Amino acid sequence: MIELPALPTEYQVRNPNFAAEVERVFSQAPFVQALGFQLTDFAAGRCHTALTLQENHLQQDGYVHAGVQATLADHSAGTAAATLLAEGQIILTAEFKLNLLRAADGERLCCQARVLKPGASLIIAEAEVFCLRGEHAELVSKAMVTLAVVDKR
Amino acid sequence: MIELPALPTEYQVRNPNFAAEVERVFSQAPFVQALGFQLTDFAAGRCHTALTLQENHLQQDGYVHAGVQATLADHSAGTAAATLLAEGQIILTAEFKLNLLRAADGERLCCQARVLKPGASLIIAEAEVFCLRGEHAELVSKAMVTLAVVDKR
Amino acid sequence: MIELPALPTEYQVRNPNFAAEVERVFSQAPFVQALGFQLTDFAAGRCHTALTLQENHLQQDGYVHAGVQATLADHSAGTAAATLLAEGQIILTAEFKLNLLRAADGERLCCQARVLKPGASLIIAEAEVFCLRGEHAELVSKAMVTLAVVDKR
Amino acid sequence: MIELPALPTEYQVRNPNFAAEVERVFSQAPFVQALGFQLTDFAAGRCHTALTLQENHLQQDGYVHAGVQATLADHSAGTAAATLLAEGQIILTAEFKLNLLRAADGERLCCQARVLKPGASLIIAEAEVFCLRGEHAELVSKAMVTLAVVDKR
Repeated sequence: MIELPALPTEYQVRNPNFAAEVERVFSQAPFVQALGFQLTDFAAGRCHTALTLQENHLQQDGYVHAGVQATLADHSAGTAAATLLAEGQIILTAEFKLNLLRAADGERLCCQARVLKPGASLIIAEAEVFCLRGEHAELVSKAMVTLAVVDKR
Repeated sequence: MIELPALPTEYQVRNPNFAAEVERVFSQAPFVQALGFQLTDFAAGRCHTALTLQENHLQQDGYVHAGVQATLADHSAGTAAATLLAEGQIILTAEFKLNLLRAADGERLCCQARVLKPGASLIIAEAEVFCLRGEHAELVSKAMVTLAVVDKR
Repeated sequence: MIELPALPTEYQVRNPNFAAEVERVFSQAPFVQALGFQLTDFAAGRCHTALTLQENHLQQDGYVHAGVQATLADHSAGTAAATLLAEGQIILTAEFKLNLLRAADGERLCCQARVLKPGASLIIAEAEVFCLRGEHAELVSKAMVTLAVVDKR
Repeated sequence: MIELPALPTEYQVRNPNFAAEVERVFSQAPFVQALGFQLTDFAAGRCHTALTLQENHLQQDGYVHAGVQATLADHSAGTAAATLLAEGQIILTAEFKLNLLRAADGERLCCQARVLKPGASLIIAEAEVFCLRGEHAELVSKAMVTLAVVDKR
């Protein structure tokens, strides 16, 4: 029987100094700073982020707004993709889809993003968002994200 | 030749006082208030919104963050759906997909959402986001949104 | 008040002989021929198709299979995109999303696809699928499709 | 540090005889039979399928048609969901999204679907499609699928 491959565990790095681009993607994005996202871990093809929930992240019925989860998933996926860029390239989200699995209500969100396909012009990544309350964590949403690789002007 | 139907132009309203729910969905959503969304128009099955862009809506390269557009599209679609609820029901986003057609860079976003299918348990809506700069407006993103109809606890 | 633009009604044609590519995309696709799709109309940025339903298009409960609708929507969107290619380019679907609005049960499907954004490397199109029974037609599904423009090898 | 949960490895089974429904979903779906899908394995919340590729599964440039992959992913996800239904319930696809990671060209497709969230009215599943050529297998597409749980009429 043929072994089906796990996803890439090794990614080809084009810019050895990719940490600088990751840092820029996080610290220079005003929307992400305004929301309070934290970059908790990253490596080639992967990115982990977190958000301490506050009242202004909620929607009208007290749950975490879908837009907060979407932004966290999209930005984490984009950052995972940014680790694989060559110097002088940037990423732009071409499209994403988010499934909200349960109403999210807790103290903190954690997001884990990883690249599924590193392409020369398109990078596809997925991102899982977990909601934490005390010692309890559950998967609340999952995104598939298509990112366009663009030369910086 | 059979005429293909345009989308529903008349929707069945279950709660004659739906304007109150629309108002609540907007004014009681802290994330939407924090971002500065404005409700500019609505009717059964439809919702128009706008956002005056500020620096804290941007990503790392100066474009409007995908998460801002996603939140505007999702919330507008949810509000369009909310016009069709019975009293005592609320909507929760089950999933959405957003295509970003061009990098968005301007003074203001406008969003037009409309219900494609009003169902008893699922409402499907689409939302178009336009970016305005001076007299120029262009479509920058489009979302398809699936909303779950839930009884308020 | 600024007028929000309708979608592009004029598209830039790069290959004046695009009808040949449209013809090829239809007649040389064995899966599409096996399913029985018909190309009913096309123009720059647009494509209309149809399918006379037979038992082998159905799923286990007698409705049109989601995969049949997905294939019709995807292929029609791809054909709409193919009208805008330069000579020597082909399109490959990068991703699509299909919302099924109601269970489809009838005699014939019609699909109308149009390009939302003609880009140099990505073309975004949407496709609406209608199900016809006697004189009655209703929208049964809608897709958003991202197509990659690739140089023929 | 809080351990983030892996996805559910145990699912609650409502119909101890779910194998009969799985069998029905496969053998009674004419489209799936016409395409030649095989059910290779299943368990509560999971389903594995395969397809030996033939010329009539291809698109105009010799690659596996996106619609074939979409149908395999959707039907496998639906079958995974069907293992968790109560007696008298059926599943209908509400929407799905498929990312095509690379052009698929090989001898056989294998699909692995699993439920991410088993809900009372909505079940969310994902499906990965691998393309096999000789001893080589690679992930060619991945879908997220939302399935509606409906009472059989």
